[in-house]
Amino acid sequence: MLAVSPYNQLALSGAGPVKDIKIFDTTLRDGEQAPGIALSPEDKIRIALALDDLGVDYIEAGFAASGKTEKDIITKLSGMNLNARVCSLARTVRSDIDAVIDTGIDFVHTFIATSDLHMKYKLKMTSDEVRARAVETVEYAKAHGLEVQFSCEDATRSDLGFMKTILLDVQSAGASSVNIPDTVGVITPRAMEYLIGELRRTLDIPISVHCHNDMGLAVANTLAAVDAGASICHACVNGIGERAGNASLEEVALNLFANYRVQTIDLKKIGGVSKIVERVTGFTLAGNKPIVGKNAFAHESGIHVHGVMNNTSTYEPFLPELVGVDRQIVIGKHSGVHSVRGRLDELGVRFPDDHMNDLMAMIKDIAIGGKMIDDAELLAIVDNILWKNETPAKSISLDELTVLTGKNITSTATASVTLSDGGKRTAAETGVGPVDAAINAIRRSINDKITMEEYKLSAITGKSDSICEVTVMLKNVQNDGSLTVGKAVGLDIVETSVDATMAAINRDFARRRKE
Amino acid sequence: MLAVSPYNQLALSGAGPVKDIKIFDTTLRDGEQAPGIALSPEDKIRIALALDDLGVDYIEAGFAASGKTEKDIITKLSGMNLNARVCSLARTVRSDIDAVIDTGIDFVHTFIATSDLHMKYKLKMTSDEVRARAVETVEYAKAHGLEVQFSCEDATRSDLGFMKTILLDVQSAGASSVNIPDTVGVITPRAMEYLIGELRRTLDIPISVHCHNDMGLAVANTLAAVDAGASICHACVNGIGERAGNASLEEVALNLFANYRVQTIDLKKIGGVSKIVERVTGFTLAGNKPIVGKNAFAHESGIHVHGVMNNTSTYEPFLPELVGVDRQIVIGKHSGVHSVRGRLDELGVRFPDDHMNDLMAMIKDIAIGGKMIDDAELLAIVDNILWKNETPAKSISLDELTVLTGKNITSTATASVTLSDGGKRTAAETGVGPVDAAINAIRRSINDKITMEEYKLSAITGKSDSICEVTVMLKNVQNDGSLTVGKAVGLDIVETSVDATMAAINRDFARRRKE
Repeated sequence: MLAVSPYNQLALSGAGPVKDIKIFDTTLRDGEQAPGIALSPEDKIRIALALDDLGVDYIEAGFAASGKTEKDIITKLSGMNLNARVCSLARTVRSDIDAVIDTGIDFVHTFIATSDLHMKYKLKMTSDEVRARAVETVEYAKAHGLEVQFSCEDATRSDLGFMKTILLDVQSAGASSVNIPDTVGVITPRAMEYLIGELRRTLDIPISVHCHNDMGLAVANTLAAVDAGASICHACVNGIGERAGNASLEEVALNLFANYRVQTIDLKKIGGVSKIVERVTGFTLAGNKPIVGKNAFAHESGIHVHGVMNNTSTYEPFLPELVGVDRQIVIGKHSGVHSVRGRLDELGVRFPDDHMNDLMAMIKDIAIGGKMIDDAELLAIVDNILWKNETPAKSISLDELTVLTGKNITSTATASVTLSDGGKRTAAETGVGPVDAAINAIRRSINDKITMEEYKLSAITGKSDSICEVTVMLKNVQNDGSLTVGKAVGLDIVETSVDATMAAINRDFARRRKE
Repeated sequence: MLAVSPYNQLALSGAGPVKDIKIFDTTLRDGEQAPGIALSPEDKIRIALALDDLGVDYIEAGFAASGKTEKDIITKLSGMNLNARVCSLARTVRSDIDAVIDTGIDFVHTFIATSDLHMKYKLKMTSDEVRARAVETVEYAKAHGLEVQFSCEDATRSDLGFMKTILLDVQSAGASSVNIPDTVGVITPRAMEYLIGELRRTLDIPISVHCHNDMGLAVANTLAAVDAGASICHACVNGIGERAGNASLEEVALNLFANYRVQTIDLKKIGGVSKIVERVTGFTLAGNKPIVGKNAFAHESGIHVHGVMNNTSTYEPFLPELVGVDRQIVIGKHSGVHSVRGRLDELGVRFPDDHMNDLMAMIKDIAIGGKMIDDAELLAIVDNILWKNETPAKSISLDELTVLTGKNITSTATASVTLSDGGKRTAAETGVGPVDAAINAIRRSINDKITMEEYKLSAITGKSDSICEVTVMLKNVQNDGSLTVGKAVGLDIVETSVDATMAAINRDFARRRKE
C-alpha cells in the first residue's frame, strides 16, 4: 500500500513523536471562515456527520456567540450523540462562554492574542490584562462544567517567556490542553519544533497545534510540532480556512500514517469526505491538490503510464484505494501508445492496430494546441479516423431552420433536411427554449431514434455577442445504443448548438453506413 | 513588508544555508507534464519570456527528444538571448543528447532512475548497467560542449551507498551539478535534510533538489534541502507538475526571502507571472493557493478585517505588494459593519447610516445560504434596500417579445414595452444571435442610452433543457454612467437573459426616479 522514503524512518528525532495523536477538525469553524464559504445549518450537520464517520476526535462546529443560527446548530449537534467531541470557539469573554454553555456541549476552545502586535493593535490591552483575562475565563468555563482548550492567538509571533507564564497560569486554572496557533502562517518547521519543544518541557497538559498555509508550510509545521511532542492537530478537510487555509486534514493524517505509523482517522473515507466538503462548500479543489485533487493519481506522460502499469509504486507514493480515491489515466500530448490503447480497451472500443499511427498523430496534433482529451473527445477522434474517408460528401444536410422564440411564447422550430438518399423532410417541434426546440425539430425531421445524452455549453463572460462553445453527446437508441459526440464554436448560441448536433448526427450516420 | 516568526531565525541550523541559491524553473517541462496541460509553441515562448523577466536562473524548456515541435521551441529559445540558461531534459540515451545538441543550447539535465524499484520494474537494468550508462552519457554530453546536471530519478527511495558511488562517478565524468529528485513526493523534511547532508559531505559540485507535492511537503522539503546545503531549487510556477505537482516557485522564493533572507527572483513580479501561467495553461488555481490564490490576501471575517485595517501585519505575513498581488476584502456571513462600510466606500457608493442595519441583515440572509457576495451583488443588494419601497408597481414592463432565429437567418427581435408614464413603444433590432437581438430590441424600445457592460452565463451541463443563470451589468451612459446589475434563472436562455436585462433596467430606472 505504501512506498515512502526509507530515509523517513532513519531521520526520526531521537524521542520520536507521541503515538496517540488526536485530530481536532475545524472545517466547520476556521474552514467556514474562508472567503466565499458560508454554510447553512443543514450543510453543517451534513459535514459534521461525515467528519464523525471519518473518525476525527474533535469537531469545532462554530462560534456559538456569533448569532442564534450558529448557536442552534451547535445545540443540535450536541444532542446527536456523535463519537467526536463537539466544541465551540469562544473569545475570553464571559458572554461568549455563556453562549457555549447554552448549547449543551461540554468543550470550549477559547483564545486571546498574546503577540505584542495583536495586543497593541487589535486588543489594545497590556500583557498583564491579557493574562488576567485568560485565567478568569478558563476558571469561569471550568466552574460551569466545560472542558477547556486554551489558545494563544498569534503564538508564533508571541514572546516565549510571556507564553510560558500565561500557559502555566491557564494550566493551573484547569485548562485540559493548550493550543499553539500559527495564526498568520509565518513559522518554519524547524522553528516550530524549537517552540513546541520549549513548551513541551514547560507544561504538563497536552499541546495542540493549529497551522495556516500562507507560506505553504502548514502540513510540515504540523508534523514538526508532532515531532517535538504536540499531540493534538487542528486541521480542515481540503485545507480550507482563512486566506491560504489551514493544514489539510487528509495530508496531516496521511503523513502521520505513512511516515510515523500513527493511525488517526479512517483513511479510506478521505476521498468521500473530501468530495462532500467540496460540493457543500462550493470551494473547488485545484487539480494538483495532494491526495484528493483530480490529478493526484492521474497519469498522462507516456513514460510514467508505462511504469505505473508495471508496478504502481514506481510513480505513486501509496495506492489510491488507501484514501478512497481512483486512479486516472488521461490522454494528452505526452501519452504513448500504451496509455491510449489501455483507455480504448476500458471504454470497450475496438480499434484496429493499422490505424494506431493515425490516431496517435491526431492526438498529438490536438494536444499540442493545449488540450487534454477526455473520453468523449477520444471517441470523437476515433470516429473521425475510422470513418472520415468513407463519409459521403453529403450525408444529412440541414437546408433550413427557423426558430421562433421570445417572452411568453412557446419556442417553436421548423427544420428541413436532405437525407443521404436525396429525400427531403420537414418537421416542426416545440421546446423549453430556442436551443431545445431547434434540436427537437432536427431530431424529428431525420426521423431517427436519437436522444441527447449530454449538452455542454461553456460559460460565457463578455457581452451578449460573445463566443460560445457547445459539445453534445447523442445516443442512437434504435441501433446499437452507441454514443457520438459533436462540437462547435460560434457567436450564435442556437446556430452553434445546431452545428454541434449536426456534426454528431453525421458522425453517427457515417459510422453506421460503414458497419 | 514582512512579519514572520522571530523563532525562524533562532532555529536556523548551525551552518545555515548557502546564500547563493539558484532557481531552476521547470514549469515548461515537469509543469507541462501535468494531466490537462499541453502548451503550444507560442504558449511556451510566452511563459519563457515571463520567467526570464521574473529572473529565474535556469529554464527547463522541455524534452528535446520528444518530437520536432519540442525541439523547434527549444531551438527558438536558444536564439533569444535570454538571461536565464535554457535547458532540456534528456534520458541517459545518446539520441536524447543528440537532440539537445541540435537545438543549440549548452545545458542538459539528464536522468536515470537509481532506486531498486525503478531499476527492476521500469528500466529492467542492474545497478552496474545504470552506473555505466550514467557515466557514458555525461562524458558524451561534455565531449559535445554541453554543461550537465545529472539526476538520480527516484533518489529518495534509492540506496544511499549506490547514490554516492554513481554521483561521485558523474562528478568525475564532468557533471557540473547533481539533482536529487523526490520523484514520487515521499520524503519528509527531516529525512531530506539527512539525505542532502550526507551527499553534501560526499560531493564537491553543487546539489540541486526537485520535490513533488504528493504528501503536501514539496516546499518544506525544498527548504530542508537548502538547510542541508543544496543550492539549486527546481520549482514550477503555481506548483503545477505531474500528479500533485512540484514545489511552487512562488512559495519557495518567498520562504527563501522571508525566512533565510536570500533573494532569488524579482518577487514583485510573482503575481503577474502566476496569472500568465494560469491563463496560458488553463490550470486554475484554488482559492486557497498560498501567495497567489484569490483568497491569499482576502479577508472576510469581521474580527480579522477590523484587525487588518488597523495594522495589516496582524493577519498578513507580508504585504501583498511584495509579491505583486492585491488585498481583497470580501463580504460574507462573517463580515461586520466595518468591512461592509469599507467596501462601499471603495466602490464610491454613498449609503445612509440609518439603512445599515437593513443592509447587514440582508447580507447575513444571503450569506447564510452559502454565498460570497461580490461587488456586483453588493450593488444589487444596496439598490434593493434603497429603492424597493419607492419602486412604482409598474415601471417599465415588457409586453411582448418575439425573436426569429435559426440557421442562415439573421436573428431578429421585436419588443413592445409600456413605459412608466403609460406610453407604449415597439422596436425591432437584429443581433448575432437570439439573445443579442432580444436585448438590442429592448434597449432600442426604451430609447435609453444603455450599454451592456457585462453578460455572464453560467456553464450549462445536462441536456438542452437545463437551467441557466444569467447576470447582466448595464451602464446608463446618458445619465451618471452608473452601473446596475440584474440576475435571472430559468430554462430558456433567451427569456432568462431578457428577464435579467429587464431587472437591471427597472432597478436603474427606480434609482434615477428617486434621485
